[in-house]
Amino acid sequence: MVVVLYSRESEKLGTRLAEELKIKRMTIESKTFPDGESYLRFTEQVTGQDLIVVQSCYPLQDKRLIELFFTLDTAKELGAKTIIAVIPYLPYSRQDKRFRVGEVLSNTTVGKLLKSASADLLVTVDVHQKESLNSYAMHTINVTAMPLIADYLKKLKLSHPFILAPDKGAAANARRVASILETDYDCFEKRRDTVTGQIETSERCLDLVGRDVVILDDVISTGKTIVNVSRIAAKSGAGRIIAACTHALLVGDAEVKMKEGGVTDIVGTDTVDSFASRISVAPAIAESLRQFL
Amino acid sequence: MVVVLYSRESEKLGTRLAEELKIKRMTIESKTFPDGESYLRFTEQVTGQDLIVVQSCYPLQDKRLIELFFTLDTAKELGAKTIIAVIPYLPYSRQDKRFRVGEVLSNTTVGKLLKSASADLLVTVDVHQKESLNSYAMHTINVTAMPLIADYLKKLKLSHPFILAPDKGAAANARRVASILETDYDCFEKRRDTVTGQIETSERCLDLVGRDVVILDDVISTGKTIVNVSRIAAKSGAGRIIAACTHALLVGDAEVKMKEGGVTDIVGTDTVDSFASRISVAPAIAESLRQFL
Repeated sequence: MVVVLYSRESEKLGTRLAEELKIKRMTIESKTFPDGESYLRFTEQVTGQDLIVVQSCYPLQDKRLIELFFTLDTAKELGAKTIIAVIPYLPYSRQDKRFRVGEVLSNTTVGKLLKSASADLLVTVDVHQKESLNSYAMHTINVTAMPLIADYLKKLKLSHPFILAPDKGAAANARRVASILETDYDCFEKRRDTVTGQIETSERCLDLVGRDVVILDDVISTGKTIVNVSRIAAKSGAGRIIAACTHALLVGDAEVKMKEGGVTDIVGTDTVDSFASRISVAPAIAESLRQFL
Repeated sequence: MVVVLYSRESEKLGTRLAEELKIKRMTIESKTFPDGESYLRFTEQVTGQDLIVVQSCYPLQDKRLIELFFTLDTAKELGAKTIIAVIPYLPYSRQDKRFRVGEVLSNTTVGKLLKSASADLLVTVDVHQKESLNSYAMHTINVTAMPLIADYLKKLKLSHPFILAPDKGAAANARRVASILETDYDCFEKRRDTVTGQIETSERCLDLVGRDVVILDDVISTGKTIVNVSRIAAKSGAGRIIAACTHALLVGDAEVKMKEGGVTDIVGTDTVDSFASRISVAPAIAESLRQFL
């Protein structure tokens, strides 16, 4: 039997995924000791079962990763057969290349630890760079939420929408969404200082009068990149400015800054639980998992 | 060459250890991104070197463990030869047995992850149960701080000191310290409810008039156990009541509660950095490492 397993922190997505797949779900009891250590307990038998373990890893990436390692490793010890780890937002996946000598490649180590903790397969959603999964020593599936985001945008009845990718890395997604919406897209140039982390976006000349703009990225963290692009879009005469992404981390006052920068709507998925999580990725994850049922 | 390596969070103990061993020390650059992810960078060459990586893992156990895994794994990738991990306070070591069916054995998983992250040897201090290191798939050294604690207590010029172990697990340490101080000791009975975590200490009849008492444990977390024992000691006529331990976690208002419970002094080591860290374990760790120099 295949079962969806999750703790309280991943309840929403875990429940939705079990409903999509029409299979049993199981919760794992969790609490935090006064000293900050996590406590987890399986409340049902997992011996001989195939498990889909759903673990949301934002916020508190380190705590959630450690808890996931505990869960996977114990599931194997308790006799689970195949173990599929679903990490909707994969932490540390952006640290997959060295920009400066001696930098830690956290992404590689996470892949190694996940393997060591007995994951047979990793399913994630819109990982920052597909190549970062190459260092994972197990089978991986990168699900895309872009068709679901496109479907949601359709319902917004945008006026002659224009899709804007804030940098080259986001261009493929912009092209994909633009194609579903049967409209055009463009891609900005972004430079990041490898020492200070400061972001600069090149000015562009665009005519957006009478058009609603969708700024599309895989992840919105502090929102600085979105603000840069939004200001240019506003100057170019854009109507509504929608910031759309898969993973809406929205660190600190990101929402306020983006609204001040001219963004009218922020749209994300439930890979991260926030006010912006208006789209569920459960159908896309379920689709990728049906082959294992 | 053997080098001591540490990040900002472990600077005090790292520096002291390098001084004790009279070997080179190296710092690893560390910062936290706005989204909470850790960034680490080696600032010097480690190729061909033997590394002693010192990582304090309290507070923020999960973050510090993940950072340690990144550091060890990258050190190996960058060509370090032997890698010794020094974790002065070993997180999750108290979760090494199942009290209820289905509980996660976090201690076992931490050992597995550490091995997977390329640690060749683990050095820790006064682990809660020595047996918990048996599941570590590498060579381990458990250093004891008890002789150093005994030396410190000597300097306090206590009046006919009496050593009290709050439970059976602490009895061996109490015996050891009592023997160095050439005095007697006793051991209390503690019961912990496996579901609620509530602690009960059996009442005891003791005559402690004219005597200073040292309540000795490996770790002080919330201080509840210490308060129970301190109240009994105070009722029994004790003079000064010293709470002494290796790892002074002192969660929340532990200090206030212990002082209210009659404790006059709190003494710990630098396995955890706090106001109570009056004893350095660097000489004891150095002693255990000299064989590798």
